[in-house]
Amino acid sequence: MKVRGVGAQTERQGDEPDRGTLVTPSAEFPPLGPEERAALGRIGERWHTPRHADELPVDPALGRNRPGPTPTRFGRLTPIDMFTVEEPGELCATGPAHEPGSRTGRALSRLRRTLFGPPLSSSAVLYERMRKLVALPILSSDLLSSVAYGPEALLAVLVLAGSGALGLSLPLAAVLVVLMIAVGLSYRQTIPAYPHGAGSYIVAGDNLGTTAGLAAAAGLMLDYVLTVSVSIAAGVSAITSAMAGLTPVTVPLGVLVIAVLLAGNLRGVRTAGNIFVLPTYAFVAAVLLVLVVGYARAAGRGFAPAPPPPVPATEGLGLLLVLRAFSSGAVSMTGIEAVSNAIPAFRPREWRNARTTLGWMVGMLVVLFAGLIGLIHLNGLVPRPDQTILSQLGRLTFPTGPWYAFLQATTALILLLAANTAFNDFPRLLFFMARNGHAPRRFLHLGDRLSFNNGLVALAVAAAVIFVAFGGHTQSLIPLYAVGVFLAFTLSQAGMVVHWRRHRDRGWRRRLALNALGATLSGLVLVIAAIGKFKEGAWLVVIAVPTLVLLARGTHRHYARLDSALALHPPPPPGTAPGVAPGGRGGATEGEELPQEVRHLVVVPVARLNRASLRALAYAASLGQPTLAVHIAPEDAEADRFRDQWRAWGDHLRLETIVSPYRAVIGPLAHYLEALHASRPELTLTVIVPEVVLRHRWSRLLHSRAEQRLRAALRALPGVVVTSVPIHVAE
Amino acid sequence: MKVRGVGAQTERQGDEPDRGTLVTPSAEFPPLGPEERAALGRIGERWHTPRHADELPVDPALGRNRPGPTPTRFGRLTPIDMFTVEEPGELCATGPAHEPGSRTGRALSRLRRTLFGPPLSSSAVLYERMRKLVALPILSSDLLSSVAYGPEALLAVLVLAGSGALGLSLPLAAVLVVLMIAVGLSYRQTIPAYPHGAGSYIVAGDNLGTTAGLAAAAGLMLDYVLTVSVSIAAGVSAITSAMAGLTPVTVPLGVLVIAVLLAGNLRGVRTAGNIFVLPTYAFVAAVLLVLVVGYARAAGRGFAPAPPPPVPATEGLGLLLVLRAFSSGAVSMTGIEAVSNAIPAFRPREWRNARTTLGWMVGMLVVLFAGLIGLIHLNGLVPRPDQTILSQLGRLTFPTGPWYAFLQATTALILLLAANTAFNDFPRLLFFMARNGHAPRRFLHLGDRLSFNNGLVALAVAAAVIFVAFGGHTQSLIPLYAVGVFLAFTLSQAGMVVHWRRHRDRGWRRRLALNALGATLSGLVLVIAAIGKFKEGAWLVVIAVPTLVLLARGTHRHYARLDSALALHPPPPPGTAPGVAPGGRGGATEGEELPQEVRHLVVVPVARLNRASLRALAYAASLGQPTLAVHIAPEDAEADRFRDQWRAWGDHLRLETIVSPYRAVIGPLAHYLEALHASRPELTLTVIVPEVVLRHRWSRLLHSRAEQRLRAALRALPGVVVTSVPIHVAE
Repeated sequence: MKVRGVGAQTERQGDEPDRGTLVTPSAEFPPLGPEERAALGRIGERWHTPRHADELPVDPALGRNRPGPTPTRFGRLTPIDMFTVEEPGELCATGPAHEPGSRTGRALSRLRRTLFGPPLSSSAVLYERMRKLVALPILSSDLLSSVAYGPEALLAVLVLAGSGALGLSLPLAAVLVVLMIAVGLSYRQTIPAYPHGAGSYIVAGDNLGTTAGLAAAAGLMLDYVLTVSVSIAAGVSAITSAMAGLTPVTVPLGVLVIAVLLAGNLRGVRTAGNIFVLPTYAFVAAVLLVLVVGYARAAGRGFAPAPPPPVPATEGLGLLLVLRAFSSGAVSMTGIEAVSNAIPAFRPREWRNARTTLGWMVGMLVVLFAGLIGLIHLNGLVPRPDQTILSQLGRLTFPTGPWYAFLQATTALILLLAANTAFNDFPRLLFFMARNGHAPRRFLHLGDRLSFNNGLVALAVAAAVIFVAFGGHTQSLIPLYAVGVFLAFTLSQAGMVVHWRRHRDRGWRRRLALNALGATLSGLVLVIAAIGKFKEGAWLVVIAVPTLVLLARGTHRHYARLDSALALHPPPPPGTAPGVAPGGRGGATEGEELPQEVRHLVVVPVARLNRASLRALAYAASLGQPTLAVHIAPEDAEADRFRDQWRAWGDHLRLETIVSPYRAVIGPLAHYLEALHASRPELTLTVIVPEVVLRHRWSRLLHSRAEQRLRAALRALPGVVVTSVPIHVAE
Repeated sequence: MKVRGVGAQTERQGDEPDRGTLVTPSAEFPPLGPEERAALGRIGERWHTPRHADELPVDPALGRNRPGPTPTRFGRLTPIDMFTVEEPGELCATGPAHEPGSRTGRALSRLRRTLFGPPLSSSAVLYERMRKLVALPILSSDLLSSVAYGPEALLAVLVLAGSGALGLSLPLAAVLVVLMIAVGLSYRQTIPAYPHGAGSYIVAGDNLGTTAGLAAAAGLMLDYVLTVSVSIAAGVSAITSAMAGLTPVTVPLGVLVIAVLLAGNLRGVRTAGNIFVLPTYAFVAAVLLVLVVGYARAAGRGFAPAPPPPVPATEGLGLLLVLRAFSSGAVSMTGIEAVSNAIPAFRPREWRNARTTLGWMVGMLVVLFAGLIGLIHLNGLVPRPDQTILSQLGRLTFPTGPWYAFLQATTALILLLAANTAFNDFPRLLFFMARNGHAPRRFLHLGDRLSFNNGLVALAVAAAVIFVAFGGHTQSLIPLYAVGVFLAFTLSQAGMVVHWRRHRDRGWRRRLALNALGATLSGLVLVIAAIGKFKEGAWLVVIAVPTLVLLARGTHRHYARLDSALALHPPPPPGTAPGVAPGGRGGATEGEELPQEVRHLVVVPVARLNRASLRALAYAASLGQPTLAVHIAPEDAEADRFRDQWRAWGDHLRLETIVSPYRAVIGPLAHYLEALHASRPELTLTVIVPEVVLRHRWSRLLHSRAEQRLRAALRALPGVVVTSVPIHVAE
């Protein structure tokens, strides 16, 4: 079971050594396994192609390997080269070859280019790596920004038991700091062990089996979506704390920011990174300034804590409340996993740079988190509905304008941009899942800016829906948040425990102990969060994770069956009957066929005799295969009239008229073709349909699209090939 | 100009003598004109089909002309015969051949059959004619039901000038009766002159030119839609007059009734007629009873009119008010044109039966209308918001229960069913328009119950939209109503004036004078209605009529250009170059081609080597034409890998790989094919696309539908044929 998902795939494509490292555009075209390759050769041996089949009447290199056109007296005519020759048999498409043909298409393409920049070549993929100093702000904005709402989430639960309970924040914060360091060290060990990407999905899947991997992935996917929603909700409330007038437009503001983030990320990794460097460092600087000034003042009065204003208790100070407060505070750790997923985006050596960056990040997190909790305690602050606690601290520290404004602005910015971490990681996670067949294959596609457009759009849509559904309210979103993250933490570190037991590298006992500690602590937080916040929203996550796992397994099953149905097998021994075998081998209805075995019957449905149908008939006849024309008539009289026309034309092809007394055309035609084919199932039935192509979209409303409906009706028939012979009319 | 629309069509298809009479299923397949037929023969002379092309490997008659299968020991196996042999070369599809292939399709088909009845054969078309006693209620329900709201509409305007003005109703009614008789006689003359359908569209178009015909048609179309909306609004208010509790559900009730009417009509003409016979006669009987009892009582008191209750005037009694009252009362005449449009639905001799029926109808209208106006006057009734005036009259005449209930019930029924007239005429009008190319051709199609499904659905949707938009309120809809009808009346009768002047049959002067009178009176009402009610809604009609005319002309132009682009021309003299002529003759890009002139190039796009693509390659190779395989690679490395696989297979076909550095597939492929084709435009380029057909609809979500996108991108290229080679996978 364990090796089936991630493992099986790795095994099959083991001939690609650095496959795990790279987010490569070739992932959409996985190479053949050795068995299939052998089968391919054996199939090829039996092929007989007609002579001269590759004597082409055109130059497939489009004449590009000849010298350019001779100069005319108006100068050398150089056509726009859409294709350049790379080597014999290989062309390279240039920019213009990507332009759509239609006018609307080209206009959209120009708009797209303006918004998202010109396309980037696949060969640029290596240069789109991040330096550590760039990676740090990009990947840490999620983690560090959590301190803008994490301490408040902790205090907001404690204060329910009255202001007296707020003193508990110090020991709880100490436990959280231990947890942060433990999880941080845990991940630090994971990175060198999985240098090609140490995401929980891969680590848990590799060591605990596919289901555990998928559960971790589902947790992370929810985490990423919620990161966007929560960060943007908190960022917007940092703005509305400072400017109360903007409160009514909270929801549109948030959706706008999501759209801007999406656009930025569609432009590609490096641009996105550059946008986000400054705000992260500025935020860290601003908070450090608050801490320095605040502790300096506190030192002035001998670190004597100011008593908090009296707040009446609404709940008793029970164990459950403390645990809820603890798990709320734990959201400060969300984002710690960002680095391990993003290892391939670092410059080489990727794992070393990633590990260093993770160390810096955790260090900064501990300093900011512990510092803020301490300072809040010293100043006796309590959560207030109209202002975030960081805003209160800012007003206290910088009673005069600009520094407070700087703090709020950087807080809002880092929160809004923290969502960007998710935009980096979510599509990458989907890419890894899609490569294993656990997510739709479209998530493998690298867009023309080398970004995973499909994943980015999926994330933006999901986050916007949740944001709108919860009205952009941070504290309502928090209960959903912790469960997914800590599920992923727990599974990833439990996976590492198994990993060390298996590999027993130098120092494995120490490493195993550390990861076991991390797993235990994370697991505890997971259980606490799931139980303590079940009613407040965690139940949603408890339902969503198994659903996502089932969907992923269903997707994997689909692709696996499809791959096996389409996989190449060695040809059957010569005695076996060729052609269509009902039920077929490997799940496909049609059997394998060799060109010399194909027997043709060509059928041309003709509604009336005009240029369109005569073209189709000429095309059919030119193939030189047995050909039958079919006409569906609504009544006898019309059938006779049509046959009369057919004779007037010269009766060049065999005609069968079918009277359809109930006047339907597509149904009887499809049934007739099916019956015809059933009488000789080994024939390949080619249905040649005349198709009138109209230029204007609106004028298509005046036509019944019989060609499309026929195609849809014939889709289900095995062994029936449909050919459209178009005639283009300028209407 | 005049002959271009209707005339040109008639001329071209003049070889079909009784074409005008019939609503024939063959209308979708118009025969070739003599010129095209001659061209067809000359094209045929130059065809060379390959030898043995009509030696078929199958029996196109599906073995049906052989004796049935021999009995086995389990008895004779008789397969369901979807096709029976009619004569050599002709099959007849039986019922099962119309069943859709998919399971959902068959379930829908069963549901449809339950709702609308089993399909009717085209040969039944003659039997679906109406006897006069059936035609009368079907066609007259619209006209006669108008008396349920017409008199009230007249009085509702008059009473604005106070109850004193109500006395004017008698002279106005007298003028209206004259108008009714004049218009009735006018139409009576029209019917024998146009025995194949004397609708205003045909009469006006034939005599006054296409635009006049289309204007009349537009007026009638609006009339039909409004007939449904108004009748159902009035019918629902007859119900709510009696049962006030139903008032809040007016709108859903009306929409439900429209749906029921649609379903009834989709079942076909005869069934629909049978449903509607009784209510019409019952309504006439009920009103006659009211009149008899009412006048008997009035005779008892010496015909002394009761004074109406005093109502204060809100407007002065000006000419405009009187004219508005007159045009409001004129809505009692709506529906008088029903017979002339429906002549082909009568039993032979159609025109004579139709004329007789019209006479009866107008007679009954005059009696009911004049009788009601008189009785209302004698009893001094005034319009009240909570009750219709007919309901007041009923309560007065039958103070005790059942007879009043009978009157209201039949009123409601006839009103609800009056809409049915429109359901008879609207699709028929669209059929005539579509036959001339003035409406989309789908309105030519006779559904499997011999009803014009498309027209019926269009009417029901339009009427429901208007009904909902006006909240189901009768008096708001009335102002829209008169303009369209009287436009059609006026144009039809003006057309007859021209007709008589042209033909000068016996007694033409008398007939001309009568039609001229009718036209003048109708024209007056039209002008009065358009001006008097412009602000109250008539402006909508004033905009809609020209819009519909323009749309119809645009549609006609489209079909005319299309027909000329697809029309057959004699082949060019032998010296001329064959093949694609840019811009082509007659508007089509592709020229005419003979089979021996077709030069092929087959291109197979291959994304990866699997059973699907090998099938496509085998199919391509089996055609024995020059073949080129094309692979689009996202980067160089992948291109090399693919070429390596190609060699492993045996390099049986020429391969060109195209590196698409921006990773798009469809765009570069389409541009490459276009460039390839441009290098030898006389070639027919067949693109053979492997297509994986998945069984489950949801699993298609997991695929990118590249085949469809490629097809869409190639649609615009002239001379490019697209062939899908499917492989069916049970996923």
